[in-house]
Amino acid sequence: AEILVLPGDGIGPEVTAAAVQVLRAVAQRYGHTFAFTQGLIGGAAIDATGDALPAQTLAAARGADAVLLGAVGGPKWSDPGARVRPEQGLLAIRKALGLYANLRPVRPHAAALGASPIKPHLLQGVDLMVVRELTGGIYFGEKRREADLARDVCTYSVAEVERVVRRAGALARARSGRLTSVDKANVLETSRLWREVATRVVRDEFPDVRLEHQLVDSMAMHLIARPREYDVIVTENMFGDILTDEASMLAGSLGLLPSASLGEGTVGLYEPIHGSAPDIAGRGIANPYATILSAALLLRHSLRLEDEARCVETAVSQALDAGALTADLAHDRPPLGTTAAAHAVL
Amino acid sequence: AEILVLPGDGIGPEVTAAAVQVLRAVAQRYGHTFAFTQGLIGGAAIDATGDALPAQTLAAARGADAVLLGAVGGPKWSDPGARVRPEQGLLAIRKALGLYANLRPVRPHAAALGASPIKPHLLQGVDLMVVRELTGGIYFGEKRREADLARDVCTYSVAEVERVVRRAGALARARSGRLTSVDKANVLETSRLWREVATRVVRDEFPDVRLEHQLVDSMAMHLIARPREYDVIVTENMFGDILTDEASMLAGSLGLLPSASLGEGTVGLYEPIHGSAPDIAGRGIANPYATILSAALLLRHSLRLEDEARCVETAVSQALDAGALTADLAHDRPPLGTTAAAHAVL
Ligand SMILES: CC(C)[C@H](C(=O)O)[C@@H](O)C(=O)O
Ligand SMILES: CC(C)[C@H](C(=O)O)[C@@H](O)C(=O)O
Repeated sequence: AEILVLPGDGIGPEVTAAAVQVLRAVAQRYGHTFAFTQGLIGGAAIDATGDALPAQTLAAARGADAVLLGAVGGPKWSDPGARVRPEQGLLAIRKALGLYANLRPVRPHAAALGASPIKPHLLQGVDLMVVRELTGGIYFGEKRREADLARDVCTYSVAEVERVVRRAGALARARSGRLTSVDKANVLETSRLWREVATRVVRDEFPDVRLEHQLVDSMAMHLIARPREYDVIVTENMFGDILTDEASMLAGSLGLLPSASLGEGTVGLYEPIHGSAPDIAGRGIANPYATILSAALLLRHSLRLEDEARCVETAVSQALDAGALTADLAHDRPPLGTTAAAHAVL
Repeated sequence: AEILVLPGDGIGPEVTAAAVQVLRAVAQRYGHTFAFTQGLIGGAAIDATGDALPAQTLAAARGADAVLLGAVGGPKWSDPGARVRPEQGLLAIRKALGLYANLRPVRPHAAALGASPIKPHLLQGVDLMVVRELTGGIYFGEKRREADLARDVCTYSVAEVERVVRRAGALARARSGRLTSVDKANVLETSRLWREVATRVVRDEFPDVRLEHQLVDSMAMHLIARPREYDVIVTENMFGDILTDEASMLAGSLGLLPSASLGEGTVGLYEPIHGSAPDIAGRGIANPYATILSAALLLRHSLRLEDEARCVETAVSQALDAGALTADLAHDRPPLGTTAAAHAVL
């Protein structure tokens, strides 16, 4: 299998290097051949080519079986007057590859409960799968500035909602049969469309799935107050961005949460949900687990290697159990660096 | 002073009745004359007049010194095909009165820590003031449905951002001198405008205030992980809606959080941030504290009666200290009803 690695900026190179090491170990142990190539994206790509997503990177992604990405962005490229921003590379690759379903599983690990701001008894048994729509909504609508006015347009089509709700419905069916759709239907027209389509798709295609609707403001509350009561959550792009960062606090650290971005084809994009953390970049202390767990999702969803995926997930769990905690997690002991944490998994 | 009371739907009539009782007691004790009139809004207004904000209600509001509102909405009026929705009444009165700054203070009370999902040691000393922009953004932009597409437009003008940031800057100056502005400037044009204007207004008019920018997704995390590190938070309409519901979990219950909606004039709108809770309506068990605390904000901001406002806030604190907990707060003892809780305050 061909795997394109896009380290990106900040801690991106460190955490993707750790995940590649783990993938190499999987290849060796199970007798697979994984070919890794590297590409540029984000600030690193802007510096080298002037473009946040060079054509060469996109072509390589289209030809690969899967893409493993670190993170993009940093103060160096955040000038308000900047012509091009690192984040545009990330948004452009999601859109160009048609990766409309962003899966963000949240399963708090016992070893990380100390790092969570949430009371531990609320976290027992929490196992969420957030499905965030990733190529529509206000992220990709028209953006304009005129004189003293700025404008962003949010649109959703029936087809855009259908396909992501279908993906979430299938996940709900394979899990507990419960699906929560999040919108702001008391205010937004796009949310009213979202709610109608979600209701119809689940009724017609997933009669065995129990669908509940939640307003995004209530969900922001319930997510931390009663996280055990939810299983699969499906929502639009911006709400998903906010709710998944919030949900990461259930897991104790953003440094533990992987994601898979999927479309109709087989090529998927796998990235930690954390950012490029420029403040700790290059110091060898970044938590590599989210990226390693993203590599596990890559094995599962793009390469269809379920056993191998579980093996990586179990190895991360055992490393955490054994106390292999990085600085974001270790509150009462000396933390491990990136390489040491990767070694604990290996 | 003339106070217009808009009970609205669900538990609205119960909680506003409790708050009016407290205001009457304040008038008596301090020798003020408060004249109360009642008006219709939301579902109750739809039932009586077909309109969620009857002209008569709006005229009464314009003539009053302050408006005390319960809550609007309920399943009875939530039919997806409904021509008019209760929430429209609320949005329309906010807009018509020009109430662009929604102040939502969050100060966890010791007696409510048990009800919060957050670890108690993180809540010690938390004292937030969220200033939510209330008459702009995607709430009030064009909304359209065409064939299989829905569309919501978000706009912000320089003047809209300036006035709400000014209000937040003044609050920050009177408090700790720290202000956090929340946006999604790495994706939205309206957020880039927001950030530019906030930066300029604080630099030019509040040089003594320390301004920090946060992306909304990070803020959703930090708000629960490090709530003590924030003081005044200013943000746009939709982000403010989501973040304040989330922040209510710091206080243990939505039932404790008041709000004040202010414009350039003196007439302000005061309402609890919770909804109409149709499931418990009419049972006499709703928590009246958020509405009573909203009445305290009314005394402070519209009537300029600071001592009286503090007196009410202290009375609520002492009632909580004395264990006067309603069902949403009482986890290990029999809960008090709405009237009993109001009596504890009186
Ligand atoms: C970097 C940014 C554009 C991105 C997003 O908002 O989608 C990030 O926050 C994420 O969640 O992947
Ligand atoms: C009822 C609804 C329209 C309203 C809002 O979104 O503003 C409510 O959630 C609030 O926060 O006051």
